[in-house]
Amino acid sequence: MFRERNPMRGITWDDYLDLPSGEKGKYCNCGSNPFHVLRSQQFNRPMLERLCEITTKTRRIGKTRGGMNFLQDLLSEKRAMIYFVQPSTRTFLSFAAATQMVGMRHENVRDTTTSSEIKGESPEDTVRTFSSYFDLIIMRHPTGGFAERIAWLLSNTERPVPVINAGSGKDQHPTQALLDIYTLQRSFENRGGIDGKKVAFVGDLLRGRTVRSLATTLSLYEGMKLYFVAPEPLQIGPDILDALKEAGTDYEVTYDFEKIIPELDAIYMTRIQDEWDTSEESRAIDTEPYHFKEKHLSLLRPDAVIMHPLPRRKEIAVEVDEDPRAVYWRQVRNGMWVRAALMILIFERDGEIDRYYHDLTR
Amino acid sequence: MFRERNPMRGITWDDYLDLPSGEKGKYCNCGSNPFHVLRSQQFNRPMLERLCEITTKTRRIGKTRGGMNFLQDLLSEKRAMIYFVQPSTRTFLSFAAATQMVGMRHENVRDTTTSSEIKGESPEDTVRTFSSYFDLIIMRHPTGGFAERIAWLLSNTERPVPVINAGSGKDQHPTQALLDIYTLQRSFENRGGIDGKKVAFVGDLLRGRTVRSLATTLSLYEGMKLYFVAPEPLQIGPDILDALKEAGTDYEVTYDFEKIIPELDAIYMTRIQDEWDTSEESRAIDTEPYHFKEKHLSLLRPDAVIMHPLPRRKEIAVEVDEDPRAVYWRQVRNGMWVRAALMILIFERDGEIDRYYHDLTR
Amino acid sequence: MFRERNPMRGITWDDYLDLPSGEKGKYCNCGSNPFHVLRSQQFNRPMLERLCEITTKTRRIGKTRGGMNFLQDLLSEKRAMIYFVQPSTRTFLSFAAATQMVGMRHENVRDTTTSSEIKGESPEDTVRTFSSYFDLIIMRHPTGGFAERIAWLLSNTERPVPVINAGSGKDQHPTQALLDIYTLQRSFENRGGIDGKKVAFVGDLLRGRTVRSLATTLSLYEGMKLYFVAPEPLQIGPDILDALKEAGTDYEVTYDFEKIIPELDAIYMTRIQDEWDTSEESRAIDTEPYHFKEKHLSLLRPDAVIMHPLPRRKEIAVEVDEDPRAVYWRQVRNGMWVRAALMILIFERDGEIDRYYHDLTR
Repeated sequence: MFRERNPMRGITWDDYLDLPSGEKGKYCNCGSNPFHVLRSQQFNRPMLERLCEITTKTRRIGKTRGGMNFLQDLLSEKRAMIYFVQPSTRTFLSFAAATQMVGMRHENVRDTTTSSEIKGESPEDTVRTFSSYFDLIIMRHPTGGFAERIAWLLSNTERPVPVINAGSGKDQHPTQALLDIYTLQRSFENRGGIDGKKVAFVGDLLRGRTVRSLATTLSLYEGMKLYFVAPEPLQIGPDILDALKEAGTDYEVTYDFEKIIPELDAIYMTRIQDEWDTSEESRAIDTEPYHFKEKHLSLLRPDAVIMHPLPRRKEIAVEVDEDPRAVYWRQVRNGMWVRAALMILIFERDGEIDRYYHDLTR
Repeated sequence: MFRERNPMRGITWDDYLDLPSGEKGKYCNCGSNPFHVLRSQQFNRPMLERLCEITTKTRRIGKTRGGMNFLQDLLSEKRAMIYFVQPSTRTFLSFAAATQMVGMRHENVRDTTTSSEIKGESPEDTVRTFSSYFDLIIMRHPTGGFAERIAWLLSNTERPVPVINAGSGKDQHPTQALLDIYTLQRSFENRGGIDGKKVAFVGDLLRGRTVRSLATTLSLYEGMKLYFVAPEPLQIGPDILDALKEAGTDYEVTYDFEKIIPELDAIYMTRIQDEWDTSEESRAIDTEPYHFKEKHLSLLRPDAVIMHPLPRRKEIAVEVDEDPRAVYWRQVRNGMWVRAALMILIFERDGEIDRYYHDLTR
Repeated sequence: MFRERNPMRGITWDDYLDLPSGEKGKYCNCGSNPFHVLRSQQFNRPMLERLCEITTKTRRIGKTRGGMNFLQDLLSEKRAMIYFVQPSTRTFLSFAAATQMVGMRHENVRDTTTSSEIKGESPEDTVRTFSSYFDLIIMRHPTGGFAERIAWLLSNTERPVPVINAGSGKDQHPTQALLDIYTLQRSFENRGGIDGKKVAFVGDLLRGRTVRSLATTLSLYEGMKLYFVAPEPLQIGPDILDALKEAGTDYEVTYDFEKIIPELDAIYMTRIQDEWDTSEESRAIDTEPYHFKEKHLSLLRPDAVIMHPLPRRKEIAVEVDEDPRAVYWRQVRNGMWVRAALMILIFERDGEIDRYYHDLTR
């Protein structure tokens, strides 16, 4: 029964914090399905494959009116709270649309000043109260680790509802890494999948959790080659390189973008994250050599793809949008489908997707 | 297939802008149904008749629990984004209720400060991202022509979703004109419809897009007589009078309200729109002779109607509300039904309305 | 037919205001079901019993996926407006979740600055416009009596929609009293119900409508003994004591909390409501003797319960949360179910609950 599923029960908060990253996953997952979605590292290779499979099946089911109506019934008895203390309209809309896709209803709390925290209530009591009314919490919070803390806290109550981390602090934004993996998987589905591909990360690799999460997740795939292309002050941190080394993943740190373009299967462009600047130091950096321009299209393999987590500024010329290898707009929509698939897996309705899809394609 | 429907494809933005008003309609419509709802002028007489017919059928179907449940299934696989940069709770609620009426789900973006425009993204990228998650965009924006621009822009992407203009700048608010037409049609359904009726516009006729849109739309009907009743500084603009002249619609500009009341079939009252004042110039104008007072009820034909787009101030005495000829509260509710009917037409589900209604009234 | 149900029709506002409290109920109820939910006093004993019965049946039906889907269809053709001028995230979420539980859709208006009241519209016109789109209004307002005023006003229109008071001014918050009653009823369902129980109110009894409403409602039960335990400046008002006296309900005003704990069946803890302070006078009061501490658990009867309307500050030690007699988190969730049951009763769908529940438990 659903109530019995509670993987975080029985460990103290301090013991959980002290666990090595690789061992935290079993407190997030129930068997091979996620229960909470807190860290990209909780997904092993089979879980990623399954997530991509369910995402594709759900997306294809959603192409017809009958299929959409099937999806509308799939989780129609569940309700989600989208609790965004840190504003992000695009991530909010993606999650909101995902809940609607699988028939869930949701409410959202986006402005904490209207909450009764002002009356002297503890943040834990506030979230516990809000969670009383819902079956799933989707949480974005400026404090690193807050979503995990709430998941742990609710584990020790009568209603241990699942928690999805929609971005907390500088460290984790697991659903972004998962949608990037899915976009790669979908792009290469006729080329043997992600294994053996060459992927470059370009731009601001120091800051921004997206690149960090995705790079380490890609080390779960075989025969990869990763390139890190950035101006010196924004290059990837040594911790990520160490992790790749340990996983046996090949990589190269380089400053010459144009030279490597012809070798690549995927280019992951990023924005200069100057919101983390302490004194506008980004302005002194010449990032222009790390922009993808229209002229670069002729250097690119015909089956390669250009990705970007968006929003973009000048990293990719608008003229590039019309090239079929520019998949960043599709990536946006993949995000919605991956999030819908996560909800299906959390509530263990993936078997119903398998059955409907089987009947559909018979 | 739905994806193929994309009337704005294949024209440049500049060419579209240069088109005479009367030729823009074909880029908004798909055959005899609207695809985008951008301008009141895109509706010709047969389209208006069909809109009124579908509105009435939908409204009547909605009177029973079974009928409401039929409507709940009608567009249950579609989702709308209500994107209101310019605040308007009443228009927002009318559209939100309309989506719910036909079973759609919606999300809304009402506060642009929470969007990632702050990170340097272009407004076009922002709207394209938001639209990725939805099947319909309902847009209110302070900039004239913005909704058309977005409709055109999305026409050149993989997902050309329909756009409804819920008010942009000073120029267009097409669904208001359509609900006014429907209110007149419904009021005169036992008197041969709108053709041949005498309609007075009273109040601030210079500013406010409502009167301007409705007056030109009424020129599509036969044998009309329009009266413009306002203090001199707020009288109707010569452009509208020229348009009526060209269409062969009879009109009269007058300053004596009481004198014409007995002749009228419909009185369209309006509020002084002093929010457009540059230096409180409205205060110097005596608008009191242009108020509808309780004593005027005895002058009015028994089958005439009093309309108002609301909100009102003192233009209509509260005592008038109880008279059955005061239809402005019904007009509010008509707005919801007309908007629901537009969604039905946009997604070409009007045939399903016809069939259900036929069975219902057999 | 629904439209005919309109209990407030035919009385003037002044006559309604002049009625003694006990006679106002018949203008809120239709037969033995509530139509409006405006005052806790409109519920007599049989109505409270019926509300508890429908709440329990609905809650149990909601335990299975099939039952939840039945509930999703129960009021699927109705839509609610949640109009909260006074912010309260927890009450808002509880009502929003309740509407979702019984399949209703809702919209909310929470920020009046975006409404067109700014254009000079009367508050009555604003609410009437908003109500045009919905079948139920759930209203929270800082002005005492505002919800009743709106209910009366709409009674004299073509669409007399029901109104639920979700808190108005200092006086009424009827759904809080009803969820408290339900929590007591549920806690004592195997001990003969509420009759004959000993209930203590502890903390700030002077301010805060919760205690006042609940105490008077409990006077409808037989053989009760109520205790009022508070520091002198925050003791219960003489008006409540007079009402209890008149109803023949036994009570005791006391200052010694620890002494009475062993006698009690239920302890209703409350927060010091210093938001009503005019000059921080609460700070001078020593409230610490009126806190429930971990050590008090050993004094408490094994079948007693500890309640709190939340949010709490230090009135109850966090360590108490894990004791099974601490029912305040369950009380939160009861609030959602009671509100859902009220909607079922308002729209007279309680017979459908009876039938489904009968089949379920056969």
